[in-house]
Amino acid sequence: MTNETVAPLYLEQTRSLFTDSDTLILKDGEQYKTLETVTEIYDKLLRDKFDRDTTVVALGGGVIGDLTGFAAATFMRGVHFLQVPTTLLAQVDSSVGGKTGVNHPLGKNMIGAFHQPKCVVADMAVLKTLPDRELRAGLAEVIKYGLINHVEFFHWLQKNREGLLRGDSELMAIAVKTSCEQKAAIVAQDEREGGVRALLNLGHTFGHAIETNVGYGNWLHGEAVATGMVMAADLSMRMGWLGQDNALQIKNLLQEYGLPVAPPADITEKQYLETMLSDKKARAGVVRFVLMKELGEAVITDAVKAEHLSQTLSAGPGLCQY
Amino acid sequence: MTNETVAPLYLEQTRSLFTDSDTLILKDGEQYKTLETVTEIYDKLLRDKFDRDTTVVALGGGVIGDLTGFAAATFMRGVHFLQVPTTLLAQVDSSVGGKTGVNHPLGKNMIGAFHQPKCVVADMAVLKTLPDRELRAGLAEVIKYGLINHVEFFHWLQKNREGLLRGDSELMAIAVKTSCEQKAAIVAQDEREGGVRALLNLGHTFGHAIETNVGYGNWLHGEAVATGMVMAADLSMRMGWLGQDNALQIKNLLQEYGLPVAPPADITEKQYLETMLSDKKARAGVVRFVLMKELGEAVITDAVKAEHLSQTLSAGPGLCQY
Repeated sequence: MTNETVAPLYLEQTRSLFTDSDTLILKDGEQYKTLETVTEIYDKLLRDKFDRDTTVVALGGGVIGDLTGFAAATFMRGVHFLQVPTTLLAQVDSSVGGKTGVNHPLGKNMIGAFHQPKCVVADMAVLKTLPDRELRAGLAEVIKYGLINHVEFFHWLQKNREGLLRGDSELMAIAVKTSCEQKAAIVAQDEREGGVRALLNLGHTFGHAIETNVGYGNWLHGEAVATGMVMAADLSMRMGWLGQDNALQIKNLLQEYGLPVAPPADITEKQYLETMLSDKKARAGVVRFVLMKELGEAVITDAVKAEHLSQTLSAGPGLCQY
Repeated sequence: MTNETVAPLYLEQTRSLFTDSDTLILKDGEQYKTLETVTEIYDKLLRDKFDRDTTVVALGGGVIGDLTGFAAATFMRGVHFLQVPTTLLAQVDSSVGGKTGVNHPLGKNMIGAFHQPKCVVADMAVLKTLPDRELRAGLAEVIKYGLINHVEFFHWLQKNREGLLRGDSELMAIAVKTSCEQKAAIVAQDEREGGVRALLNLGHTFGHAIETNVGYGNWLHGEAVATGMVMAADLSMRMGWLGQDNALQIKNLLQEYGLPVAPPADITEKQYLETMLSDKKARAGVVRFVLMKELGEAVITDAVKAEHLSQTLSAGPGLCQY
């Protein structure tokens, strides 16, 4: 399963790895991450008499991975699948951990299943064809792993910024491998997100609110997460947890990676609150935040004071400047 | 989640068990066991802001249970669900074991997930409103458990036929409890149907072929399974496994329970073979059968001789009469 953008680049090479395979080329774009597209996959598989022994391969970015994984999770109650992610974001985030699914008109990723890929193949060569803006957005999620629980990795990312932004394959391989290891270790402890897995949402509560309110596609996911992490740093600082120097280090690193570090000016506090409360991670009307106790130590909390949250939501470009 | 037939009978009573609940009433019938109906459930849940802590309750027969279970499996990547089956068939079969899903125009139950209910509530009182034909069809699946691995239960069903057909609540409770225990013990060994769970398909390979070729809804599922079990007994006899006396005991018991024991005259051998090969349980073009070594001992085999199968498929009303 791939899309019309990726197919001309990598389909032939990928098919050459298998002795017997067939292809479905889907439309490219988040707007096609729907049940209708999953139905196209079911139709293809059933029409061509694929059976329970089928292995479905996702060749593409996060949308292809999520769609294909959900089809694999639900075709004949589950068949094997492999991920061949072709974006940095998919390599370090969505291809690992088994979250699959589609969007609903009333919310992103509202329909889905946990279904682990049997294997994830991340080839650094595919990053050569990735637009620069998408590379940077992917690096936002890489930086996230440094902030969650790996301060040495955060410093390594400070040190190797130039090489990574140039797309150096050896450095990139270290970044991808470290990110996947960090994510896998957390998911192994908590596949269904009852506890620690929520740490992976650092920057995502604010980030989703930005994406929803500016309309999906205007900001890349990684860009929204970058700004979301700056907002989380700001809130952590106001809670008295993160020192201002560390909060600024985070903001500066993201800025040096060419990522946005200020939210769109036109989202109101009310819009943020409404979006965050309708997030599927909100429970019984309480928004849980992932904040930082210090650099490289994220924590999950629902004890945020309304006053501090309000200050963060209205800080604009002044985030992390107390 | 219930349907327009069950709602007037049991909805109010069921809702009284919960302090806080809401209802969606779906259309009644196998033809509504589709992704479109599951989408109605998603729409309702999202519109009314149900979150991950939601418990979805299926109140109805197998269609409601399968639809609701699949919606619960895939809403926000899985929420809890309870089964309150209102048909005998659902009480002894579909509500236990975690198979959920919907039909696709190209095949029954082709889309689905394994998702265990947290609890199954089988109230014998609901069987009082069940049409007689459906009660008998449900008893076909009860008899199946005797044939798989519980010959004493088979004899108990011979002995207590009159009371069960009258719907005697105490006898029915024993029948339902024994059936659920037998099914749960098998599913616990093999949730994903890699091995022994396939024993539960006794009578189903032939039964599905009958249902497909006469058009769903003309034969009840349990009726098709009853005839399918007679065909399995016939084939087991031709393989030299089951004695003719035992094969006839099976046929006679099913007949005494008012179930059909001869396949429709107008299904050709070719139609049977094509349907059985397209079943999702067929792998790499081989149909696996569940047959009987003796009364109360079912086995899974793919070593059926074409000649014997052909004799079974053409035996018509003469099944089990060598």
